[in-house]
Amino acid sequence: MFVYEKRLQYPVKIKNPNPKTAKFIITQYGGPDGELGASLRYLSQRFAMPYPELKAILTDIGVEELGHLEMIGTIVYQLTRNLSIDEIKAGGFEDYFVDHTTGVYPTSASGSPWTAASMQSKGDVITDLMEDMAAEQKARTTYDNILRMVDDPDVKDPIVFLREREIVHFQRFGEGLGITKDKLNRKNLYAINPAFDK
Amino acid sequence: MFVYEKRLQYPVKIKNPNPKTAKFIITQYGGPDGELGASLRYLSQRFAMPYPELKAILTDIGVEELGHLEMIGTIVYQLTRNLSIDEIKAGGFEDYFVDHTTGVYPTSASGSPWTAASMQSKGDVITDLMEDMAAEQKARTTYDNILRMVDDPDVKDPIVFLREREIVHFQRFGEGLGITKDKLNRKNLYAINPAFDK
Amino acid sequence: MFVYEKRLQYPVKIKNPNPKTAKFIITQYGGPDGELGASLRYLSQRFAMPYPELKAILTDIGVEELGHLEMIGTIVYQLTRNLSIDEIKAGGFEDYFVDHTTGVYPTSASGSPWTAASMQSKGDVITDLMEDMAAEQKARTTYDNILRMVDDPDVKDPIVFLREREIVHFQRFGEGLGITKDKLNRKNLYAINPAFDK
Amino acid sequence: MFVYEKRLQYPVKIKNPNPKTAKFIITQYGGPDGELGASLRYLSQRFAMPYPELKAILTDIGVEELGHLEMIGTIVYQLTRNLSIDEIKAGGFEDYFVDHTTGVYPTSASGSPWTAASMQSKGDVITDLMEDMAAEQKARTTYDNILRMVDDPDVKDPIVFLREREIVHFQRFGEGLGITKDKLNRKNLYAINPAFDK
Amino acid sequence: MFVYEKRLQYPVKIKNPNPKTAKFIITQYGGPDGELGASLRYLSQRFAMPYPELKAILTDIGVEELGHLEMIGTIVYQLTRNLSIDEIKAGGFEDYFVDHTTGVYPTSASGSPWTAASMQSKGDVITDLMEDMAAEQKARTTYDNILRMVDDPDVKDPIVFLREREIVHFQRFGEGLGITKDKLNRKNLYAINPAFDK
Amino acid sequence: MFVYEKRLQYPVKIKNPNPKTAKFIITQYGGPDGELGASLRYLSQRFAMPYPELKAILTDIGVEELGHLEMIGTIVYQLTRNLSIDEIKAGGFEDYFVDHTTGVYPTSASGSPWTAASMQSKGDVITDLMEDMAAEQKARTTYDNILRMVDDPDVKDPIVFLREREIVHFQRFGEGLGITKDKLNRKNLYAINPAFDK
Repeated sequence: MFVYEKRLQYPVKIKNPNPKTAKFIITQYGGPDGELGASLRYLSQRFAMPYPELKAILTDIGVEELGHLEMIGTIVYQLTRNLSIDEIKAGGFEDYFVDHTTGVYPTSASGSPWTAASMQSKGDVITDLMEDMAAEQKARTTYDNILRMVDDPDVKDPIVFLREREIVHFQRFGEGLGITKDKLNRKNLYAINPAFDK
Repeated sequence: MFVYEKRLQYPVKIKNPNPKTAKFIITQYGGPDGELGASLRYLSQRFAMPYPELKAILTDIGVEELGHLEMIGTIVYQLTRNLSIDEIKAGGFEDYFVDHTTGVYPTSASGSPWTAASMQSKGDVITDLMEDMAAEQKARTTYDNILRMVDDPDVKDPIVFLREREIVHFQRFGEGLGITKDKLNRKNLYAINPAFDK
Repeated sequence: MFVYEKRLQYPVKIKNPNPKTAKFIITQYGGPDGELGASLRYLSQRFAMPYPELKAILTDIGVEELGHLEMIGTIVYQLTRNLSIDEIKAGGFEDYFVDHTTGVYPTSASGSPWTAASMQSKGDVITDLMEDMAAEQKARTTYDNILRMVDDPDVKDPIVFLREREIVHFQRFGEGLGITKDKLNRKNLYAINPAFDK
Repeated sequence: MFVYEKRLQYPVKIKNPNPKTAKFIITQYGGPDGELGASLRYLSQRFAMPYPELKAILTDIGVEELGHLEMIGTIVYQLTRNLSIDEIKAGGFEDYFVDHTTGVYPTSASGSPWTAASMQSKGDVITDLMEDMAAEQKARTTYDNILRMVDDPDVKDPIVFLREREIVHFQRFGEGLGITKDKLNRKNLYAINPAFDK
Repeated sequence: MFVYEKRLQYPVKIKNPNPKTAKFIITQYGGPDGELGASLRYLSQRFAMPYPELKAILTDIGVEELGHLEMIGTIVYQLTRNLSIDEIKAGGFEDYFVDHTTGVYPTSASGSPWTAASMQSKGDVITDLMEDMAAEQKARTTYDNILRMVDDPDVKDPIVFLREREIVHFQRFGEGLGITKDKLNRKNLYAINPAFDK
Repeated sequence: MFVYEKRLQYPVKIKNPNPKTAKFIITQYGGPDGELGASLRYLSQRFAMPYPELKAILTDIGVEELGHLEMIGTIVYQLTRNLSIDEIKAGGFEDYFVDHTTGVYPTSASGSPWTAASMQSKGDVITDLMEDMAAEQKARTTYDNILRMVDDPDVKDPIVFLREREIVHFQRFGEGLGITKDKLNRKNLYAINPAFDK
């Protein structure tokens, strides 16, 4: 089970609302390569993961990503706080506003609701770890793109933190893949799925 | 941020695998009225919630539902552990197995990946609380349907627990709605959205 | 069966086209909380509704919402009539125009085609009524947001009418819930689903 | 606006429940080529249709299809009335039952919620009429497939009626295409869209 | 099997990047009536097509549409080459950019990922051909709309070519329908599906 | 552009129809990790790929996967050829049959139409290659699962071939990643995207 600790993993303090920026950052809340997908992917995969070390990595990172989801939600919330209707219109935020006011909703930047079709939990150690490493690179690229478009240092600062965590996660999954290959080595690689085959 | 506590909110100990049962219980993992939607709905709505008491209720219940998601994942995992191919075929589990082996994946019973289109975060106190009360009743009905179809007491026991929690949540959201109406009373009900209007 | 009466439930006469406005109002045609979902939700739920009074309420309101769908379609049509390409570009209407010209299509403001995943028909009296009350509040909030963004009185006028109807529907479903609770009172509330249990 | 007439377009009186049959017939309620898509397609296209004769055909057929939707809902309801849990299990109906009890919900036979992505409203007379003719043939084929699988004469009878109506609609849309070509003839065919171009 | 020939079916040489134009042209890559759907529709239908002449038409056109998909991908790529961040922002391209940088991804203009729900493969000769003729008209209309919005002759030129090919395909499918009706004539039209009935 | 060669990459000759097997093998046609997604992923990514060697690998493999899609379509077609209605019912094939007769349609085993949400084209060399390596492992696992469930040697034989090709592709993408890292080495790894940054 999970316990909530009433603080963000890294502080978010944005002084100036900016709906234009909110609209594309929300993709890390509910877009194809965002924190919701990351967290759910790892927390789902861990059930069938056969090795305790890897189960622990998946749980750790999955829980941390939940905290990242909270950080992104906070960024979006602060960027859309106290907006006037004129700011909403000037920021091209009408499409989001009409359906969600300024509530935080899991959608991509272009307004597609999040779908689990963008993640996989395959029940195969090697495959799940490759899926996870790819997911971290996709998240890293999305943060790169956000950093390319954002000027406000209040926004940049937590985004840089989040981008760095993705690289750390990528490396940890890489180590997990190493551990797995060592274990499977003795058997024919890819021919045995310890989560399913006897 | 979130912390993981290495125990389930309520114990799950299923002795006999049963893919037929797993296939419909998974709908509470990734189906339209399941625990993923519940948790994400509340944890998303709390950002724009204007009253601290309600923010606290949403956080509390949202975090508890994450633990319920974990319980359902555990039930599905235990129901599909050590299956033989013959059991998979006899249980009509081929469709799930081919794409996810026995990994846990957020899907409805009929195999549609979870979509955020099944939830709303509307940025309006009254509306969000009504959405939440409806969500709890939908989850309660799904548990009713599971209980109608399941005989194994190892499965029934945690499902009864989960069903009862939904009723408690329903009542808490009802109390939240009462608090909200008191606050909005002085102004014209529905005409003011304290999360957005000044 | 249904009969068409060649007039709108409430008149729509918009003098000035405005694709920017059309683009967000269309969400009440095919968005997550719009009139299509409302109508289809009630007209679907009524089959399994065990009490004639409630079947009648669902049919009445479901049929009225079909008329609201027609009103919204008319608003969108009038707002996009005789547009020049320059007006389409100035109004940010290219994304819609390329796929639908100025035809009316059931989509959300951000361009996601309508999906039945945004509604439920649960086969349980209490649950379906809670779902319906939440749906009315979600539609009401969407109309609130439209009214916050629209200045043209030709558009505001029918939207105000539609918003008021949602509140009336909300109250009627509330009365339906009262009737239902009276009937179920004698049995254990929530433990019996008269549409399914004997 | 629409008026409800309390009778079906063609009577439905099914004596024997059969969840197996219900599960595939529901595809004409909420599947890719079913009555919901038919009705919504025509009722949406008529707004931008430039010729009154064609507007009338679209309205007529769209309203009739609403009545077909009601007939299919009634068939599904009667086929799932008073089921026991054993019948639900024997009929492979668990996946549907867990999420909707025996409520009628707009889904395909394989359990995908209806999506507007399966229809088009293109704002071009010729294109919309071709879309409609194709839709009628797709619905006709689905009814053919149902008739190939169903033995119960109580079910066959209304399905035969519905299949025949699709052929009549196909012919009426074909006539509409003829009318349109006559009107466009004088200008260069396909080069002018009277709903949009001046 | 398929062989790649390293040249486009028709040359694409765009000198001036233009993200605004890229954003709506991409709908012919991954939108509801685009080249991906066209190609996949025909290449899928041909398996069950009972007549060799029609199998050949479907294969020919399906393969040509793959080449059109490549042309559209090239247009999108050239329109987004060497963009600066300022150009991305001025062109309203942030939503696409954040998730795909300037990679080509199969999405509609409004950002919904391509879904096979927008096409059908029905296993019935007449129905599949009607579906195909409607698809060609829908693609033709989309190209019409692109031509209405585009001024750059470098872009117009290949789009005019592609539009003309759709009309040729429409005619070829029409001829295929004629061939089919001749063959089915001797039996009762629509009552026999040669791909399925004996 | 593409050229069709009238032979399969590897022969498919299945003597005995088997709808049960067809129903799960089709997931490699239109499921989350199937050949459609593979082919489209690589053929889409190549536009923005900055290095000619990698562009060539993506084109090669993308075109080969198109041929694999054709092989899977052929397997599904041969497994459903000349089925009687009794065989359709005994094989649990009603859900597919009602909507597609025995036509080949891009769907997952559980009946969700293919969606581009299951793939990514990210416009970043390293990320796209990681995505591709993960995709190959997911396809490999799906083939593993098919082989676990299939006994008929006529089916097993081409599936073994296809599974082996995925491993070869995985290795080629791995080599591509090596080439890329060498090129990026001189700059700060991950900090430069040669497809976008100058």
